Amino acid sequence: MYVLDLAQLTPQAFLDEYWQKKPVVIRQGFKDFQDPISPDEMAGLAMEEEVQSRLVYKEEGKWQAKFGPFESYEHLGNENWSLVVQALDNFSEEAAQLIEPFRFIPHWRLDDLMASFATPGGSVGPHIDNYDVFICQGSGKRRWRVGDRGQHTEFAAHEALLHVEPFEAIIDAELEPGDIIYIPPGFPHEGITLETSMSFSVGFRANAAVNLLSGFADYLIDNELGGQLLEDPDRKVVEHSGEVSKADYQSIKAQIQGLLDDERLFASFAGKFLTSAKHELDIMLPEEPFTLEEVSQLLTSHAFKRLGGLRAFYLANTIEQGICYINGEQVEFSVEIIPAVKLLCDQVTVEPEELTQWSSNLDFINLMKDLLDQGYWYLAESEA
Amino acid sequence: MYVLDLAQLTPQAFLDEYWQKKPVVIRQGFKDFQDPISPDEMAGLAMEEEVQSRLVYKEEGKWQAKFGPFESYEHLGNENWSLVVQALDNFSEEAAQLIEPFRFIPHWRLDDLMASFATPGGSVGPHIDNYDVFICQGSGKRRWRVGDRGQHTEFAAHEALLHVEPFEAIIDAELEPGDIIYIPPGFPHEGITLETSMSFSVGFRANAAVNLLSGFADYLIDNELGGQLLEDPDRKVVEHSGEVSKADYQSIKAQIQGLLDDERLFASFAGKFLTSAKHELDIMLPEEPFTLEEVSQLLTSHAFKRLGGLRAFYLANTIEQGICYINGEQVEFSVEIIPAVKLLCDQVTVEPEELTQWSSNLDFINLMKDLLDQGYWYLAESEA
Ligand SMILES: O=C(O)CCC(=O)C(=O)O
Ligand SMILES: O=C(O)CCC(=O)C(=O)O
Ligand SMILES: [Co+2]
Ligand SMILES: [Co+2]
Repeated sequence: MYVLDLAQLTPQAFLDEYWQKKPVVIRQGFKDFQDPISPDEMAGLAMEEEVQSRLVYKEEGKWQAKFGPFESYEHLGNENWSLVVQALDNFSEEAAQLIEPFRFIPHWRLDDLMASFATPGGSVGPHIDNYDVFICQGSGKRRWRVGDRGQHTEFAAHEALLHVEPFEAIIDAELEPGDIIYIPPGFPHEGITLETSMSFSVGFRANAAVNLLSGFADYLIDNELGGQLLEDPDRKVVEHSGEVSKADYQSIKAQIQGLLDDERLFASFAGKFLTSAKHELDIMLPEEPFTLEEVSQLLTSHAFKRLGGLRAFYLANTIEQGICYINGEQVEFSVEIIPAVKLLCDQVTVEPEELTQWSSNLDFINLMKDLLDQGYWYLAESEA
Repeated sequence: MYVLDLAQLTPQAFLDEYWQKKPVVIRQGFKDFQDPISPDEMAGLAMEEEVQSRLVYKEEGKWQAKFGPFESYEHLGNENWSLVVQALDNFSEEAAQLIEPFRFIPHWRLDDLMASFATPGGSVGPHIDNYDVFICQGSGKRRWRVGDRGQHTEFAAHEALLHVEPFEAIIDAELEPGDIIYIPPGFPHEGITLETSMSFSVGFRANAAVNLLSGFADYLIDNELGGQLLEDPDRKVVEHSGEVSKADYQSIKAQIQGLLDDERLFASFAGKFLTSAKHELDIMLPEEPFTLEEVSQLLTSHAFKRLGGLRAFYLANTIEQGICYINGEQVEFSVEIIPAVKLLCDQVTVEPEELTQWSSNLDFINLMKDLLDQGYWYLAESEA
């Protein structure tokens, strides 16, 4: 278990002073930090098809980026390269624990845990991200330079590497195991490896307006909704056929506004959109579906874990109607089990003590059975 | 020139009683009607690549639809088939004149002129359209049945023919040359040919809400707009990471609302979207670009015609800023020539008397030159 120590700051003070505003180094944010996985384990993951990974290095002064899976790393030598793995939380329960201290920020803002193994000199190069990130230094040592937000020119150092022109550093720090650097969106940064390093980035995400709009349009199209045509039975004769009158322009805009104002429609879209998986989940289906009896029994005796990377949220607006969203789908349930569903959405692990009271509730048993059968939740292994 | 006689009705009375509300037969809407093109001319057009056409007939009791261009019609015999040509106004100046009497309805609501040549028994079958249409009978005779709006089952009589189940007729009329039948959206209808017939449909269009939304999203994407990310510097620590709070949900919705509320953005999109050509234009580029001197001279001596099917509109909201929209593009010009631009958008033909006062205005000369060079307007032939 990782315990985050924000130095003098409470989480709220951190949010007030730094979140979305300015970068900061948090010395020994994690005391006695132990890498959740080893470089070998990471290298092994990056050989798997389902895992999104990249090798970044410089070859004769020119940046290169290759996408995994990889067959071997021997040709790389022992410096000037790094291996980056996306969504490590989907594949490693231990690594996923690094996210837990950051739960004071709601899950819908979270993206994933990205890990990088880097040899001395290794770096992904100077760049700007559109997301907030806590870069947690594991074993080794890296030097991080961070520039201020502003006018920065970006360019493709490689077709898969968008870099930024050299910048003045407002932070220039060497990070050691347990140190964390927090960087808001738009601040250019560059990490150079001093000693072979494992580093773990807890990354957040925020949608661009156009992505939301486009997602909403796709949602309507896929579900054959929003087909209402403009109606104009009150049309008045015009003298100027080339004009789109103010009234007509308003009615055209009102067609879109009507979709946005449809509360059920937009809530449905939003829940599904926010919980859609951006990175492939490592789903392991049970050999056989669970029976209701089994589930009822297990609820009293076992802890349940939520699949790494699975997004399960509820909207404050609609949870009281017995609605939640899991992995891009709307899930409806009886209102009496709302507290249980909230637990599932709020916590990665739910202990038997927390679920015992629901173990005879047929609606909850059915829901858990569905979730277990889909591999979305599974039986937590007992901790020794 | 076609003169529309709405019997006892003024255009406003027609709109008040029938438009978007109920179908009606207008006997002798056109007195002494002459087909604007002959069946041979139409058959010739339907052999051209650029022209959208269909042959619809029944073969052994089964409906068939074939898409043009066609090489010959000899195999069809002399009954039970019809040839339909879309956007005839793009290809025939004479046929385009049929639209002029309907200019009391703004151009942005207009779709195209569709023509059908049908042999006795020929029909496209019983169907429902999503648009208002004035079906103008030319030579020959057809019987039209129209049913009421309501629950009607549609089915694919052929993969390209969506038909409707049999319906009770609220109108059952035989149309002769010059008769018109007006049908609003949603009323099932079927035309059966009694005597070899030429018929001309002035069709309108109205966008479905989802098409507008989707078009708006595409517009933003194509122009790399709307990239603003959600910002939450005022975030408060949460206890329930699985919740999307009311405030957060509102801010997500507000991202889309912000795009809709961006007046310049939405107006730009709307103008371009409404003027985009749905049917291929028959553009004929001049052999050489015009010179400014030529244009200035021509403005005093010649009438200009707008290319058939070209959509040129102005928004009441923004015309006074010197903005209009032509064929999917925004066109900006100096405010002093606004009246001239309105003429171009309001009228298919602009007479020299109407343009003489602008013949020394450099801004207008430049605009006309651009429009002529793109083939959007051309010199009208003198009428004998
Ligand atoms: O670990 C790395 O090399 C890159 C980390 C980074 O830039 C980030 O997480 O935003
Ligand atoms: O002319 C035809 O056969 C079809 C006309 C029609 O149904 C229409 O214009 O909506
Ligand atoms: Co970064
Ligand atoms: Co029709």
